[in-house]
Amino acid sequence: MTAAAAQPSGPAGPAVLDLSRSVAELTADLVDIESVSGDEARIADAVEAAVRRHRSLSVRRLGNVVIVRTELGRPERVVLAGHLDTVLVAGNLPSRLADGRLHGCGTSDMKSGVALQLRVLELVGGGTLDPAVDLTWLFYDCEEVESARNGLNRVAAEHPELLAADLAILLEPTDGTVEGGCQGSMRAEVGVEGRRAHSARSWLGSNAIHAAAPILQRLADYSAREVAVEGLTYREGLNAVFISGGVAGNVIPDRCEVTVNYRFAPDRSEAEAEAHLREVFDGYALTVLDSAPAARPGLDRPLARRAVAALGGEVAAKLGWTDVARFSALGVPALNFSPGDPNLAHRADESVELAQLERCEGLLVAFLRQGPDASGENQGRTEEEIATD
Amino acid sequence: MTAAAAQPSGPAGPAVLDLSRSVAELTADLVDIESVSGDEARIADAVEAAVRRHRSLSVRRLGNVVIVRTELGRPERVVLAGHLDTVLVAGNLPSRLADGRLHGCGTSDMKSGVALQLRVLELVGGGTLDPAVDLTWLFYDCEEVESARNGLNRVAAEHPELLAADLAILLEPTDGTVEGGCQGSMRAEVGVEGRRAHSARSWLGSNAIHAAAPILQRLADYSAREVAVEGLTYREGLNAVFISGGVAGNVIPDRCEVTVNYRFAPDRSEAEAEAHLREVFDGYALTVLDSAPAARPGLDRPLARRAVAALGGEVAAKLGWTDVARFSALGVPALNFSPGDPNLAHRADESVELAQLERCEGLLVAFLRQGPDASGENQGRTEEEIATD
Repeated sequence: MTAAAAQPSGPAGPAVLDLSRSVAELTADLVDIESVSGDEARIADAVEAAVRRHRSLSVRRLGNVVIVRTELGRPERVVLAGHLDTVLVAGNLPSRLADGRLHGCGTSDMKSGVALQLRVLELVGGGTLDPAVDLTWLFYDCEEVESARNGLNRVAAEHPELLAADLAILLEPTDGTVEGGCQGSMRAEVGVEGRRAHSARSWLGSNAIHAAAPILQRLADYSAREVAVEGLTYREGLNAVFISGGVAGNVIPDRCEVTVNYRFAPDRSEAEAEAHLREVFDGYALTVLDSAPAARPGLDRPLARRAVAALGGEVAAKLGWTDVARFSALGVPALNFSPGDPNLAHRADESVELAQLERCEGLLVAFLRQGPDASGENQGRTEEEIATD
Repeated sequence: MTAAAAQPSGPAGPAVLDLSRSVAELTADLVDIESVSGDEARIADAVEAAVRRHRSLSVRRLGNVVIVRTELGRPERVVLAGHLDTVLVAGNLPSRLADGRLHGCGTSDMKSGVALQLRVLELVGGGTLDPAVDLTWLFYDCEEVESARNGLNRVAAEHPELLAADLAILLEPTDGTVEGGCQGSMRAEVGVEGRRAHSARSWLGSNAIHAAAPILQRLADYSAREVAVEGLTYREGLNAVFISGGVAGNVIPDRCEVTVNYRFAPDRSEAEAEAHLREVFDGYALTVLDSAPAARPGLDRPLARRAVAALGGEVAAKLGWTDVARFSALGVPALNFSPGDPNLAHRADESVELAQLERCEGLLVAFLRQGPDASGENQGRTEEEIATD
């Protein structure tokens, strides 16, 4: 792994973050602190050191998770959550500016989102922004790897009270739009047994791969639901993602396994999703491999509706799984919103558009400044303020 | 690999074979010279040294292939062929006698066959057996591995004149019966393409595994031929032996590959077999991975019919592929005959029945002693002779 953080103190020393820099500069600073999953100590140290300069905010450090809270006594609380880790660096560090975009590992997923979190924190901590709600900032590790290591997951399990809120905004890439809730995801293995034999005397065996034909036919014939939940349309999908079978080039195979991935709408629980799979694959052995619940968008709550209105007015269903589901499981409605482009995530040519970054910062600050009787009239003022930042 | 040959000089020194020992003892001696494919030098040395003691026989050594010929001016020539190598030793060396069977790696496949070859050679070389035909003995290496390394294959390519004969008897396990010719075998990959997409937005992709359903259905529906060739019934088979597809647990797969194995009767050439596969999988990309021709039993020739009569009177189609096809390709009819049990080949509990060994030796010697006007009357005499050996 190449250390490529462009910090004055060099990659081996502590990284320093100056939260007064523009959101674009701050994104570049964060990108240049390499933080592949499992290696987030240095970026978490930098975030912790930067936020601790605001004495009005309470700061907790749990492993490589940094949790910052206001305690302003507001009637509602909003969580701004983002992960500090990235996928493996693909020769795309340090960051570079070109064509109005910042390029590099994590620019889109999701250090631009973390920069937005930190900009809001700087404005609130410095007194420039007096928020209408109390705020919780969550900076966490290991989102890009297995769920058991996920920092948000650990906090949810060990300190669920720290996640309590009336709305969570997860700054995962949405290309500047609001996406509500998320699909659930279940992976299951559907297996068929046969009986081995030499392929020269195949009639002595029973071919498990041939016996898998109806499984694939059911998948090919499957008609996926489109489900409206709280006004958003979730489109489901049921797909084979792996198939394997075979012992040797001259042996009738005695086993064939099809791994399916079911993406399901938030009107179904994980138990209901499993029951549906067992119905589709009736007659076959089915084992659930892993599962993550769907999340409702929470648009039945006034605060979520206000957020949508302030963040652009449009909202779509999140067609994918994100950590919003962890908030949803705790009863906290959650939206996805950030300047990153989901189609560029995890790619060597990952980048983020600077204009989108500025726009999202303006919208987010405007939302947080609004009171419960938001009319949107503050938005212009906020953008002006941002422009002179 | 454990060296376990029970030779007086120890595994590191030259192994010594005494061809005057009984066929059972000789089998044990051969089994105890470990000779996994690629490691046949020591057993080939032992065979060469033993056969060179008969000055009346011409001996050639080509790599680890030993070729011995009589030049008696007989009107017909019979090849006795056997491979010296075994599959990997499975803790089943040295050999041991129990329950009237010899146990150990290669007892069945096919050092019992090699012992039979050597016994006949000893009788002919020593003048005890005056054969009605000229004889060629082929002891070769690397039968249990890929075709390119096969010693018989190399001789066929480089010195086909050494294989010229009117009949070949391959001493591969047949459990003491005669099996004529062999099935051909062709492996081909049938592939389907799709288009990758995130499984949360599966409608943007095209699932190659689902698209493989008709391939499996055609295999499941396939009705294999039973074909009579020269009076023997060859039963064909077309089977998937491998299937694979899948990129990641959240990706719509863009490729699925089914490897099929077609075992075909000797009325079809390899070109005809391929044409048949292309017909069955019409509409799909098909690539032939490897292929081996079928072999006709040669029962339209008087010598082959005499061999069948002398070796027990019964003959069945060989349902499997053996090196008889290499002779068949050179125009030499070929039969399989040996005391080994094909169902025990390549197993840790491999063994051979001693009574079957003695019986096969008697039949083989009787056949070779007969003239073209064979009446079978010599057979009793030969067995008696063997019994006092």
